[in-house]
Amino acid sequence: MLATPVIVVNYKAYPQATGPAAVKLTEALERVAHRAGASVAVAPGLVDLRHVAEATKLPCLAQHCDPIMPGAGTGHVTVEAIAAAGAKGSLLNHAERKLGLEVTQASVDRLRHVGLWSLVCAGNVAASRAAAALHPDMVAVEPPELIGGTVSVTTADPLIVSAAVRAVKDLAPDVRVLCGAGVKAGKDVRRALELGADGVLLASGVAAVAEPEKALLDLLEGLR
Amino acid sequence: MLATPVIVVNYKAYPQATGPAAVKLTEALERVAHRAGASVAVAPGLVDLRHVAEATKLPCLAQHCDPIMPGAGTGHVTVEAIAAAGAKGSLLNHAERKLGLEVTQASVDRLRHVGLWSLVCAGNVAASRAAAALHPDMVAVEPPELIGGTVSVTTADPLIVSAAVRAVKDLAPDVRVLCGAGVKAGKDVRRALELGADGVLLASGVAAVAEPEKALLDLLEGLR
Amino acid sequence: MLATPVIVVNYKAYPQATGPAAVKLTEALERVAHRAGASVAVAPGLVDLRHVAEATKLPCLAQHCDPIMPGAGTGHVTVEAIAAAGAKGSLLNHAERKLGLEVTQASVDRLRHVGLWSLVCAGNVAASRAAAALHPDMVAVEPPELIGGTVSVTTADPLIVSAAVRAVKDLAPDVRVLCGAGVKAGKDVRRALELGADGVLLASGVAAVAEPEKALLDLLEGLR
Amino acid sequence: MLATPVIVVNYKAYPQATGPAAVKLTEALERVAHRAGASVAVAPGLVDLRHVAEATKLPCLAQHCDPIMPGAGTGHVTVEAIAAAGAKGSLLNHAERKLGLEVTQASVDRLRHVGLWSLVCAGNVAASRAAAALHPDMVAVEPPELIGGTVSVTTADPLIVSAAVRAVKDLAPDVRVLCGAGVKAGKDVRRALELGADGVLLASGVAAVAEPEKALLDLLEGLR
Repeated sequence: MLATPVIVVNYKAYPQATGPAAVKLTEALERVAHRAGASVAVAPGLVDLRHVAEATKLPCLAQHCDPIMPGAGTGHVTVEAIAAAGAKGSLLNHAERKLGLEVTQASVDRLRHVGLWSLVCAGNVAASRAAAALHPDMVAVEPPELIGGTVSVTTADPLIVSAAVRAVKDLAPDVRVLCGAGVKAGKDVRRALELGADGVLLASGVAAVAEPEKALLDLLEGLR
Repeated sequence: MLATPVIVVNYKAYPQATGPAAVKLTEALERVAHRAGASVAVAPGLVDLRHVAEATKLPCLAQHCDPIMPGAGTGHVTVEAIAAAGAKGSLLNHAERKLGLEVTQASVDRLRHVGLWSLVCAGNVAASRAAAALHPDMVAVEPPELIGGTVSVTTADPLIVSAAVRAVKDLAPDVRVLCGAGVKAGKDVRRALELGADGVLLASGVAAVAEPEKALLDLLEGLR
Repeated sequence: MLATPVIVVNYKAYPQATGPAAVKLTEALERVAHRAGASVAVAPGLVDLRHVAEATKLPCLAQHCDPIMPGAGTGHVTVEAIAAAGAKGSLLNHAERKLGLEVTQASVDRLRHVGLWSLVCAGNVAASRAAAALHPDMVAVEPPELIGGTVSVTTADPLIVSAAVRAVKDLAPDVRVLCGAGVKAGKDVRRALELGADGVLLASGVAAVAEPEKALLDLLEGLR
Repeated sequence: MLATPVIVVNYKAYPQATGPAAVKLTEALERVAHRAGASVAVAPGLVDLRHVAEATKLPCLAQHCDPIMPGAGTGHVTVEAIAAAGAKGSLLNHAERKLGLEVTQASVDRLRHVGLWSLVCAGNVAASRAAAALHPDMVAVEPPELIGGTVSVTTADPLIVSAAVRAVKDLAPDVRVLCGAGVKAGKDVRRALELGADGVLLASGVAAVAEPEKALLDLLEGLR
């Protein structure tokens, strides 16, 4: 499993994190993570997944996958396909790619079946609890209204983080809990850990800035 | 544009056409296509797209893409991402990955905007006409009940092919019309062309067989 | 068919147009329409459809229906169900309830099969053309960014109306074209007709105001 | 709350349970339930909901509702709309109308907010546990492959019933657990109760048969 505390960087569909830029960004993040001895994982776009995974030792997560079996599934992404590309796991049910209850459950199970991690996103405490009931490896609580914003969830709504941590751990103590939305600075990461989280999930703060190395360095300060 | 008549091979999520096997399959198809001087395009899975595109001169199509702009779009695939990976275009609205009317329209427009082809699938004549009204580069008519089956659409329902050709060309003469579903042999390809189609879209007949080179060779017979 | 020019009032899920209020609203609109001798149709919520249809002579449209056949279809609404409830037709593919290309096509066909009208919404000219290619009874062009706003499409983007009218009539002269989004006053209706539209589709301007009778009266001024 | 053991009859989109037939069916079921002093609830189609609720004292559930707030929501069904129609609650996430994890959660909360019951369907034990984590009033486990079939889940897969009961009660002891799929006879109901279920959810066995009264009578035998 991912060493915690962990920082997961979601590349979304940012132009600064797509195609050749995705590899360059990853190399920069790896340098910083390596120097700091910190646990950092990246989630590049599906099309860039193999390219990035081949270029880095950082664990790579797919941003999404489908629970269908290999076979007829045009436009779908099997867990086997992301495993073959070098992914160590997958995000599921991100606010920008919501999944059905059964689809999430089946995806968690399919990922485990091929030895990959699952990181299920949830928009609130109740949804985090439901996600935990599926026994994924990680749950990330991200209030949708704060995603992409400038105020960190740890400042805007710290209670949602601590409540999600409690809800998840009560139900499934082994499941790691991340928090996300608006996380951009070392103090946000520190606060997340104080609130009981095992790490953070972030995106634009690192994947869509002019100086990603500096941004990650600042975030890693929060891990000390 | 693709030279016609064209044979488009959809790799779907077949294990024989995923990961390293996708590259090997493509190389085999390229050899056969090159020798025969035939126009063949391939549609590998999203995760394998770049890998395959880098390994071949055959035009590569994505199996799906989303019309969102680069930016926040976790788990989505932009036209910019598939272009950067070397795709020449994308399938849209395949029966296994249906899209909304406006999403299909926006995807056709976004693909054109970045200089990529669009191949819109449609399940019947009326849907083919609607697809043609979006002025994509290609429309592929594929009756869903025949997809993955053993009887070619050209045998089971030849009238749907000729009617779709007429419907599309009446409305948008420049749009190429393919047909698909159950196409597996040279005689199916020949019949498709006789019915007015500009080519065929197929999958399991080439991408999920023990001897894909032989299968493609047989299909190419139909082009003579 | 609906006499044109027509004003279609979409009740959406407005509290002022749900439950008993839906019936009261409809009776008020019927009085005004009757006095003015104008063609007005209403689209109440699915749950209120029968109730409203039983209480009025105004033609009632469902806000949505599914193309599935009667049978197993929990939570789905068949064309047979809305017909039995007294609907004369259905909206399809509204910006708030988008449908797949094939689903829209199948719904248009299913509605026609049981003798009901179809009114397919479309967000732009290209989508209107695709909608027209399905040969529904009506197409309503509504730019999504103007829906629910204070500026009428006829003021904000008159060219989209005239272009949609042309695109639809070129392809299918018998299909009526409505326009919508932000339509609230008689002058908006007048302008819509000048631009070639056969009527308007509106919602909040009548269904979510304190004095719907007055609002409709004002709109009907535009028909003169 | 519903008195248990309970039999919930889902009318789906069966022609024998749509329009005027829905009312007649309900009256027949009410007679039988009344005579037997049994707890029976019905879930008519959305369009028939008010009609049926007005005609019966049996508790009525909607087959589906959306968690959107009253307002702009064309084609969507608010909890306020089904409450105004006389529903006592709603099915959610039926295998034929799957919902997202967050949508299910929001719907459960919205229903509770207006004083209505929620009955969340789930296709297996893990999904039942996730559903229970949302604290709905009821969870119904229904293996999708057995739905509409001739063999009762209680015969084909009794362990899924007992395991779902345990999983739900462990997590949320107050949540009632129903089972469904293929349930057609009194012995199926009896077996469901022996396996720990609080009742059954069924459809075709009562709502699509020639003699629904007789069918329900037989089922009620299982409650003794």
